[in-house]
Amino acid sequence: MASISASLTKLLQHRQLFPGLANKAYFNYGGQGPMPQTALDAISQTQVYIQQIGPFGTEVNSWIQEEMKAARNAIASEFSVPTETITITEDVTVGCNIAMWGLEWLCGDHILLSDCEHPGIIATAQEIGRRFGVEVTFCPLMATLNEGDPIDLIAQHLRPKTRLVILSHVLWNTGQVLPIDKIAAFCREKSVKLLIDAAQSVGLLSLNLTELGADFYAFTGHKWLCGPGGTGGLYVRPEVRDSLKPTFIGWRGIISSQARPVDWESDGKRYEVGTSNYPLYTGLREAIATHHQWGTPEERYQQICHNSEYLWRRLQRLSNVKCLRTSPPESGLVSFQFTNQTPQTTRQLVIFLESQGFLTRTIADPDCVRACVHYLTLESEMDKLVEGIQQFFEEGKR
Amino acid sequence: MASISASLTKLLQHRQLFPGLANKAYFNYGGQGPMPQTALDAISQTQVYIQQIGPFGTEVNSWIQEEMKAARNAIASEFSVPTETITITEDVTVGCNIAMWGLEWLCGDHILLSDCEHPGIIATAQEIGRRFGVEVTFCPLMATLNEGDPIDLIAQHLRPKTRLVILSHVLWNTGQVLPIDKIAAFCREKSVKLLIDAAQSVGLLSLNLTELGADFYAFTGHKWLCGPGGTGGLYVRPEVRDSLKPTFIGWRGIISSQARPVDWESDGKRYEVGTSNYPLYTGLREAIATHHQWGTPEERYQQICHNSEYLWRRLQRLSNVKCLRTSPPESGLVSFQFTNQTPQTTRQLVIFLESQGFLTRTIADPDCVRACVHYLTLESEMDKLVEGIQQFFEEGKR
Repeated sequence: MASISASLTKLLQHRQLFPGLANKAYFNYGGQGPMPQTALDAISQTQVYIQQIGPFGTEVNSWIQEEMKAARNAIASEFSVPTETITITEDVTVGCNIAMWGLEWLCGDHILLSDCEHPGIIATAQEIGRRFGVEVTFCPLMATLNEGDPIDLIAQHLRPKTRLVILSHVLWNTGQVLPIDKIAAFCREKSVKLLIDAAQSVGLLSLNLTELGADFYAFTGHKWLCGPGGTGGLYVRPEVRDSLKPTFIGWRGIISSQARPVDWESDGKRYEVGTSNYPLYTGLREAIATHHQWGTPEERYQQICHNSEYLWRRLQRLSNVKCLRTSPPESGLVSFQFTNQTPQTTRQLVIFLESQGFLTRTIADPDCVRACVHYLTLESEMDKLVEGIQQFFEEGKR
Repeated sequence: MASISASLTKLLQHRQLFPGLANKAYFNYGGQGPMPQTALDAISQTQVYIQQIGPFGTEVNSWIQEEMKAARNAIASEFSVPTETITITEDVTVGCNIAMWGLEWLCGDHILLSDCEHPGIIATAQEIGRRFGVEVTFCPLMATLNEGDPIDLIAQHLRPKTRLVILSHVLWNTGQVLPIDKIAAFCREKSVKLLIDAAQSVGLLSLNLTELGADFYAFTGHKWLCGPGGTGGLYVRPEVRDSLKPTFIGWRGIISSQARPVDWESDGKRYEVGTSNYPLYTGLREAIATHHQWGTPEERYQQICHNSEYLWRRLQRLSNVKCLRTSPPESGLVSFQFTNQTPQTTRQLVIFLESQGFLTRTIADPDCVRACVHYLTLESEMDKLVEGIQQFFEEGKR
């Protein structure tokens, strides 16, 4: 009991660093993570510092370059990969687009997506399909949440002309964690490239991208890493960099001589475009450092699973609630449905919960409510959330 | 004299709003504009407010949508165009890329650029050329700075298969202002689309994009508008929206039903991708409002020309300095060369000036030094800059 209390004390202290956690019970880490005060301060101070020594000049430009290098290093270190593999992007979707448009498509090629990918990624695949005569099909992975083997299913849906498979590492609707290492090995055997949408996995799972083996891994800083919105990136496996062409192009990706482009940057910068808000990356670096103060990526992941199992068990005990998972979740996403629900009533529940200070969200397919727990989440918050859900049913709000 | 003094007093007061102007003489508005304190504060406060009510939930998401609508309105109002024509992008180069990749290229098509376009834009054109078999050529507009007619020259370089002309409104190296209205009318007659890189014109010129007639007008918030880095956008003429396809695609550009994309957004949002740092746009809005406190866009432009003529005249008086323009500039960019210069000595001059508190930059082609003046620039700053340049020569730094 003493050690439980010590760890709770540590967590309560650590949570003080996150102003967004003070006035609510937060369950939308998968939408956007709350920023630590250190990150907020770093952003403001960096904006001011750039004004002071710049905003544009020899000194400030070198300083910004060093800051961006430090941010790249911090990200690469989270993934256990060399810094040269990292491209900075505004968000995860831009990262996916770089990988998708950067392959040289031929008419008749095939893209395979899971049936749980984000609408923006589906729309990108379909536009590539329309422009180049590429076929786009979906593999019904949603059904493997509780039984069946996603690897078998993907194998069944590959075609001779499949050139790209697109999967989320953690499915944003059901929270399922896909066995990307095995899928990557299988795809490589078949000479099919693998793009991972890591929106829900970076900052949640403990990662070694070299070992994972995916070709492209697109991520965001603003969800489980709790960095600012407008930060993200793309990991490109060094062996495939030369076959991935830059599409959206700008001064950050090229080497110029006499104001004319003469080559791509040798590393992941080749896919970067123009001016970003650099202070945001100082903020992201602070957010990453703040998590390390609490524990290693593996310790954080273990705590996330501990928390999601706790919430899952409490929800399962409610007579009219059914979690999508029939066993404890492997991620921090806990999605559930309830008796006689409709898209309207799931929405009503989320709005009722928000009025009580619990932030969750609805998911459209499958129609459900999603509550995310981080290592930051308190058991008492989960208890109160479950009470809030009970109250919703008891008060006949539906 | 009384009125001159009143306007100086007003300007000195106004300049107090820009902390970056306090400790230096700033001549890099064309690189990045100094942000007003109101914008810095708005960004910080908005970041904090989003943490307080969110960062992700029904209430905060609606609030952000309203803020972004207000930002779009403020931008559209600067351009005298309907809000639906505006796409928000991270920077001007992304805006150019949206226009360039969004046309459906056929083998044998032709893109014409001026010889003064930014290297990133050239590289994009060349990559489109490589992928689709499109020819890319350059029109020698640099030579029309002091004589000759850019419209004639463009007419001579058009080909039967030219589908896109790419020009900067204000050339970033020489500061020349191109007669875009006439070029746009001519291109439209020839059924050639016209993309304008407005990096140096937005916040400098007084604009009415409907009257100007360009098809695509890509801009940034962080140069002459003095907003934060990482803000920008693209104007698309309503009549050509349906023929410009989205390339990089995300949830912001599509309408979804049951988590599947069913249509594009009807307005400029269709070219937007994923999560941006929204507070930056509150900052941009504040920056725009701050300029209006001093004067209208036309008044600002007149003052810019007044200032650049002043600097130009003072520089012309130096025996070993030669401005690129033989008559007073039409923009805020004043580029000059000096006797026996080399790329090394122009760089030495810029570094010497920076050590004295004057921020300028070198340009690679033509090899020169560029000093930008805004309506915010003081005559006393320009006097001191010219003295600094003299000192550089006198001290035999070269």
